Amino acid sequence: MLPREVMQEVYNEFFDYKNSGLSVLELNHRSILFNEIVYEAKEDLRELLNIPSNYSIIFLQGGASLQFSAVPMNLMKIKKAGFIVTGHWAKRAMEEAALYGETIELTSSGDRNYSYIPDCSNLGISEELDYVHYCENNTIYGTQFKDIPNVGNVNLVCDMSSCLLSEPIDIEKYALIYAGAQKNMGPAGTTVVIVRNDLVSDDVLTGTPFVMRYKKQIDNDSRYNTPPCYGIYMCGKVFKWLKRNGGVETIHEINKTKAEMLYDYIDNSKLFEGTAEIQSRSLMNVTFTTGDPNLDMVFVEDSKRQGFVSLKGHRFVGGLRATLYNAIPKEQVAELIDYMKKFERNN
Amino acid sequence: MLPREVMQEVYNEFFDYKNSGLSVLELNHRSILFNEIVYEAKEDLRELLNIPSNYSIIFLQGGASLQFSAVPMNLMKIKKAGFIVTGHWAKRAMEEAALYGETIELTSSGDRNYSYIPDCSNLGISEELDYVHYCENNTIYGTQFKDIPNVGNVNLVCDMSSCLLSEPIDIEKYALIYAGAQKNMGPAGTTVVIVRNDLVSDDVLTGTPFVMRYKKQIDNDSRYNTPPCYGIYMCGKVFKWLKRNGGVETIHEINKTKAEMLYDYIDNSKLFEGTAEIQSRSLMNVTFTTGDPNLDMVFVEDSKRQGFVSLKGHRFVGGLRATLYNAIPKEQVAELIDYMKKFERNN
Repeated sequence: MLPREVMQEVYNEFFDYKNSGLSVLELNHRSILFNEIVYEAKEDLRELLNIPSNYSIIFLQGGASLQFSAVPMNLMKIKKAGFIVTGHWAKRAMEEAALYGETIELTSSGDRNYSYIPDCSNLGISEELDYVHYCENNTIYGTQFKDIPNVGNVNLVCDMSSCLLSEPIDIEKYALIYAGAQKNMGPAGTTVVIVRNDLVSDDVLTGTPFVMRYKKQIDNDSRYNTPPCYGIYMCGKVFKWLKRNGGVETIHEINKTKAEMLYDYIDNSKLFEGTAEIQSRSLMNVTFTTGDPNLDMVFVEDSKRQGFVSLKGHRFVGGLRATLYNAIPKEQVAELIDYMKKFERNN
Repeated sequence: MLPREVMQEVYNEFFDYKNSGLSVLELNHRSILFNEIVYEAKEDLRELLNIPSNYSIIFLQGGASLQFSAVPMNLMKIKKAGFIVTGHWAKRAMEEAALYGETIELTSSGDRNYSYIPDCSNLGISEELDYVHYCENNTIYGTQFKDIPNVGNVNLVCDMSSCLLSEPIDIEKYALIYAGAQKNMGPAGTTVVIVRNDLVSDDVLTGTPFVMRYKKQIDNDSRYNTPPCYGIYMCGKVFKWLKRNGGVETIHEINKTKAEMLYDYIDNSKLFEGTAEIQSRSLMNVTFTTGDPNLDMVFVEDSKRQGFVSLKGHRFVGGLRATLYNAIPKEQVAELIDYMKKFERNN
């Protein structure tokens, strides 16, 4: 879901962007107008997340999944990296990195189907590593890190696909952050990479495709090849919308309120219960269940008829899931809770 | 440029796709509605290009440029491929393939800055090759192959980024065809790959990123990971527009007429002359010049004021260039010629 204000703006200039007579869908990616779009998107994101000048911002294609390869291809020098495995995607990132070097599972919450975030205050890293990788918010399981893993001086890489821009972050704690746009930033098809410049060089693994080389993309301002123009444009609109509305600090407060409202209700409900461990709960994805798979299905079907989409849990965990990304207004969460209360009374 | 009819349709359903209450920009890529979009786009493309059932169609990200790696990563077994070098992009494809195996330049038109298509009726291929790669239409130079290169029994791979859907093609002559969408199909950010099924397997080069493995993407119907949903949707709209308007046979006739109109005028002009060799001329990109770089610049600036965008030649060749992609109506070519005539009279 994208903010209504952003959708309206995009709609208004659909046929004619800034009196150019052209739609952004048709804009040349080397035109002055598109240069401006990329420039402003970068500057706005830098401001929103307080990204220091020794970090570069790149807009890429291929989703977070392509970064599962791009990160090791660009960052592996001694060819050994550590992984914190808190779910399907974190595991996928590790499996794919294994194509390029040694991967070490530092800790995992796989023993209880990733329903919690393991303690990462002392990961006991005893050897040299190119980086440690983790996934901050685990959409499938509804878990989220509350603290940044303690990796000492090792470079920290984070997949923030489902939480980037939902909260303030301390960029300097990270070597590299990547995120698919489709949760809190824009439409599917755009990936954002924020990387510390000292890590970027031509010294990459030999088989690294040119368009996946961070240096080439940074040198060409995200346009080593034709970029996903419309996606970048829409991300830029979302950045401006966030800025107008108080930035990530404000949206974080709203996100906390939204999540608290829903978790509070669930915790007090006699029908529903949360499935993620309380201390590990995500602000973005609330996983819960009635405890009865059949009743969960009834809820999914009934909720659809009431206009709520996608309340079905991921097939890996079953149950139910509500997503509370930035674009979801508080009112919608209140409506969901009202509906859940009604459902509880009737069941 | 995208067809006006398509733009209007996309605009009309911007906020609400098929009464779902959702924009395609927000549609889940695993929803029934999006399944339908992918299915119809594939079926329509299959029908338009007469793609036999032993070929798969995949919608990917990363542009044609990512295919410069994906093709060798997926297709190189003996790790040796041949290349026909007719321009910057064809050369780039060869340079990148060299990361993965031996590359053999079979022929090149680099001796005269790629202003012509070399004779490929007898390439003298004497050794076993994984494939031969060529680029059918060379946008920068305004050249296009009139005949399919004779590669005997070797697998033929073609970059058709700037000509796919502009003409009928004999798919069975090819092992693999790829094309960035942004010329004749849809917005930037989507790539189409058409590949013969016997070439697709799990046997790929070790370091091939998972999302770049054709087999994984085919097995997951272009959704091994989140696809560029909006791009696929718009491509689908363009496919339906083409079908409604007589298919590729009809658009090919229109494209021929458009190109003839412009080349005829240029050949009869006392001011302008074409820069590509006559027998190698492209139907999509008409390159020309006044012969005087300063006057060319005057033309570029003056034409902009008259509402013609992008008539400047590519920086690799200089001069002037008009693009005549499918979405450009005949009337617009006539207007350009009228303007050029006026410019000729005044200069």
